[in-house]
Formats: sequence, C-alpha cells, structure tokens
Amino acid sequence: MRTTIKDIAAACHVSAGTVDRALNNRPGISEKTRKKVLDAAAEMNYQPDFTARSLVMGRTLTLGVVLFDLYNRSFAQLMNAIEKRARELGYFVYITLTDKNAQNERTCIDYLINRKVDGIILFSVNKGKEFETYLNKLHTPVVTIFNYISSDLEYIGIQERQAMKDAVDYVASKRYSRFIYVSPPLAYSGKSNIYTQEERFQGFLEGIQGHKAADPLVLKGADYLEKLMAYPFNKAEKTAVVCSTDLYALEVMNTLKGIGIAIPGEAGVMGFDDIDMLKYISPRLTTVKYPIVQIGEKAVESLVHKIEQGAFKSVPLLGHEIIKGESI
Amino acid sequence: MRTTIKDIAAACHVSAGTVDRALNNRPGISEKTRKKVLDAAAEMNYQPDFTARSLVMGRTLTLGVVLFDLYNRSFAQLMNAIEKRARELGYFVYITLTDKNAQNERTCIDYLINRKVDGIILFSVNKGKEFETYLNKLHTPVVTIFNYISSDLEYIGIQERQAMKDAVDYVASKRYSRFIYVSPPLAYSGKSNIYTQEERFQGFLEGIQGHKAADPLVLKGADYLEKLMAYPFNKAEKTAVVCSTDLYALEVMNTLKGIGIAIPGEAGVMGFDDIDMLKYISPRLTTVKYPIVQIGEKAVESLVHKIEQGAFKSVPLLGHEIIKGESI
Repeated sequence: MRTTIKDIAAACHVSAGTVDRALNNRPGISEKTRKKVLDAAAEMNYQPDFTARSLVMGRTLTLGVVLFDLYNRSFAQLMNAIEKRARELGYFVYITLTDKNAQNERTCIDYLINRKVDGIILFSVNKGKEFETYLNKLHTPVVTIFNYISSDLEYIGIQERQAMKDAVDYVASKRYSRFIYVSPPLAYSGKSNIYTQEERFQGFLEGIQGHKAADPLVLKGADYLEKLMAYPFNKAEKTAVVCSTDLYALEVMNTLKGIGIAIPGEAGVMGFDDIDMLKYISPRLTTVKYPIVQIGEKAVESLVHKIEQGAFKSVPLLGHEIIKGESI
Repeated sequence: MRTTIKDIAAACHVSAGTVDRALNNRPGISEKTRKKVLDAAAEMNYQPDFTARSLVMGRTLTLGVVLFDLYNRSFAQLMNAIEKRARELGYFVYITLTDKNAQNERTCIDYLINRKVDGIILFSVNKGKEFETYLNKLHTPVVTIFNYISSDLEYIGIQERQAMKDAVDYVASKRYSRFIYVSPPLAYSGKSNIYTQEERFQGFLEGIQGHKAADPLVLKGADYLEKLMAYPFNKAEKTAVVCSTDLYALEVMNTLKGIGIAIPGEAGVMGFDDIDMLKYISPRLTTVKYPIVQIGEKAVESLVHKIEQGAFKSVPLLGHEIIKGESI
C-alpha cells in the first residue's frame, strides 16, 4: 500500500503539517525533526503524490523558465541552479527555449500558462508597452532576469552598467591608451530586448569618459573579428579590447593569437561573465564575475514567495567583482 | 471577441491552412505571405488556442526531455538541437533536469506524463527490469538517448565501444607504451545507468588488448587527479592518459601542466566528445567527435514519426571520428 504523509506522521509522532514542512524543505521545524521525518520517509519508501497535493493546494507546483538558448555557458549554470532550488522548495521546473525569437517567446509563455504553471522566470528578448500589457494580463506571476522590461515587473540581476564601468577603470589602471569595444548583439538595438548588452555598453562609455583615451572603436556587427584583424595594433600605444561577454573575448584572443599579437604585451583583452571553462584557457582571461547561481536561486525564491505568500521577495541588485587574470 | 485563424485568413485573403503554416513556422508558403499573416495576427491580437488545437488533433503537440544536468557542454548543444527540430515539426519542448537522481528522474517522467506530453526523450540514469516495466506501462512513446536501457526501447546513439577502441588504436599508433584510463563515473557501476561510460571502458580494454602495453592504470574515483599526480611519468616510457569525456581530459591537462609534465612530450591526453570550447584551449585536445546535433534531431524525428505515423523511424547507430589535435 502506498505510504501517506499520515503514516509518516504516526511513525514519527509528529503532525502531518510537520511532515509536510520536512518533505518540502520549509522552515518552522528543527533540523533534528526534519532529519527524523526524512529518514522515516526514505525507509517507508514514501512517494509524493503530486496530483493530490496540487489539488489540495490549488496549485500545480510547477514553474516555467523561458530562456533564449543555452549557448552561453553561464546559462547552463543558471538552469541547474534554478532547477535545484525549485526542487528544494517543492516545485517542478519546465525549461523552454525561444531561439532568440520574439514570437517564439510569446508561444513559450502561452504554452506555460496553458499548462497552468504557478509562475514564470523570464529571460526576455521582448520589450515595450504591448508586451508589458500582455504580461500584466496573465494573472500568473513573472520574475524577469538579466533583460529588464519595466519597473512593474519583478527583476533580478546585477548592476550591469556599474560592473562594466568598474571593468574599464581596472583596464585604464593598467595604462592602456586605446580602447576597442566588442558587442555584436548591439546590432539588434531597438529591435530586440538586449538590456544587459546596452547597459554594459553605457557602462563602457561612462568608464572611458573618466580617462584620457582616444575615441574608442566600437564593433557592433558579426564582422567584429575581421575588423579587429585590420586594426593597427602596436606596442607603443597599448590597446585594450573590452568585450561584452567572455565568449566574444575568447574569440578575440584566438584571433589575436592567430595574427601574432602578444596578449597582454601588445593588446589586452577583458571579458565579462567568468564562465567556468576559463580555468582551462591560457592566458587566464581577466573578466567580471557575478553570482549566476544566486540569480537563479533568488529568482525561484522570490517567485515562490509570491505564489505562496502573495508578494515577491524583493532582491536588491547583486554584486560583481573583477577577476584579475593575465590578459590585461 | 477572440480572434480566430479564420478571422486572420479572411483579413489576409488566404486559406486557414496558410495561416496555420505561418503561425506555426511550417514550410510551404512564401516569406512574404508568412510576414503578412504574422503582422495581421499581431495587429488583431491573436492568441493561439492550444487547448482547442490539441483537442482537434487528439494530441498536445508537446514533447518532454528528461536529462540529468547541463554541466557537460555537449548537452547544451543537444538541447538546442532538440528544441529547434521539434519547433520545425510543430512541437513544443519541455526540458526537465534530474540532477542524476534516479527518483527525480521518475518524478520528471510522471510530471510529463501527467501533463500529457505526446512523447519523451530520455537520457536515463535508471535501468533494470522494474524501470523497463514502468516505462512500458506509460502508453506514451519514449526514445532513449546515450544511456541504453533495453532492446524494447527505441535508442539513438553512437557505437560508444568501437569509438573508444578506435581512439586507443590511434593513441597506440603514436608509440605510447603505458596507458592510464580516467572515468570517475565508473564508481557508480551497478548503482546507476552509466551505459555510455561502461561501453567506452570496454572499448578501451578491447583496444589495449590489441597492443603491447603494460597493464593500464584505471582511475574510477573522484580522486583521479591526486592519483595522477603520484604517477611516475617519464620520457623513456611515454604514457597516454585516455579520458572518457573531454571535461576529465581538460582537468587532466591542467593538472599535468601544473606539475610540469610536458604534453605530449612526456604524457599524451585523449578526450571524448569534442566539445565546442576546445578551440580556445592549448594544446588542442585530441578527441573523439560524434554528431551530437544529429542525435538530438534524429530523436525528435523518430519520436514524432511514432506519434504521427504509429512507428518509430529507426536510426542506425551514428558515426564518429578521431579529431587529431596536439595532445597525443
């Protein structure tokens, strides 16, 4: 016969509510009690009955995630963190991918709403009034991450602009007199929500203003590597190539190595993201690190707080730090 | 009143079928028509009625993917490929993660079945008779990938054993007299479905037999790097470290570099996966490449064929090739 919460409660001499708290990792009980309940549940081979539970609670205990793709290595870390935290809080996660297409993103949200998820974590490529109206009509809570949409929507992220400004300050302290900025997604400015890229670019421009440097060369297109190859690097005037993500920085490093430009002797390279693969790559990329796992965890916690308590758990913008590598 | 496909068809002077093709991004219409329909749909605030559509078709037009995690870089490529091909065929994808936990995997499958997905792509950590019985009772088609379960279940993958045997043959051709094999997941042998890891290990053993080499040192635990550091490498007897995945090979390369062992002068390193990040890493890892994107695409195609035509589209095991880098 199937083990129920009542069976576990009887075996442990506690209330059904206490068992529920222990199984779903909610506060309000001691660690000792939690351990006793979990041990008993394992021993009695307890299998949670999600359908019954969601009927009782009037919820589906599922969250949806809408993300454009998984190419950026950070996103894999983000998804793992979201899934893990949601599971700890008793929620199941559906991840959906939009291939950076605004229409696909709407379809993903519609599907998740139709499947009655309790909440959505949204990394949007959409923006604008019409999209905001659509989101506000959903009656399902949404937490936005990375790409900000509006102050009416809960948002979890970092101080993108300040982070890039700090990166430029660090580069400038190493006596670079010329700057190149690499951010191919800026080609989609005005067409797509590229908030993080735009903020990082503004941070770069603000950073540059504070230092004596020639007007920077800004590479916004898919042809950034060709333009880089045509650039007159020279040792007398050291150039820093500041990139909006680590993946572009790695492409830049490969290209510079390919044409025999010494890093950082002739050209410095600055990244942004601190993806975990950097530890295998030489020279160690100097970059900006931010708490990607925490962003995922906080997004889940805020959303679940809204679902269960009626209000989001507001999260201040999270911190960042410069990782001093060997490329600047 | 809710906008219907008929309303859009009337407004654009096209058939309902054409509208359906445009909205669901299917072939068979011109780009001009597609744009006209999508613009009209947006203007008329069309919201697709998934419930109605799936009722008509007797399907939900959704597929579920069950995967353990996204740490291996190849899995991000696999997920992107699955999502893209499914979208092309008119299906929506839910990705679920199990954190390599057998019970979580059952929960994921249960959730997807409760949500009435039309089919499941399963990268399992479960195996055994009881699990097979459970899968066979689902009445929802399942395609297994990478980790084989049984001949009763559709499977898409590569010749793991032969691929590793070919890798060993290649290494042996470079005059290595000693071999180390690295595969920490083998510690879970018998406890978890680690089919691909076990097959690769068998391939390694078969490969070794064909060559004059000392008994290999096999590192199956999480302490593989410590054991590697204690190994007496020397130039007179070149040692090859054959790794079951690129990620372990990258850790091995970092560790060898750290203790001053020249690659491939004193020790060679062989990987398996050909993850896309290798292009940034020096020396270029010698590895085994297989068509990860094709595995994802074929899994979707076979599953959709089963859903729509009643039978899986059987896929022979896919090919592999040795990528000759600089580490062997």
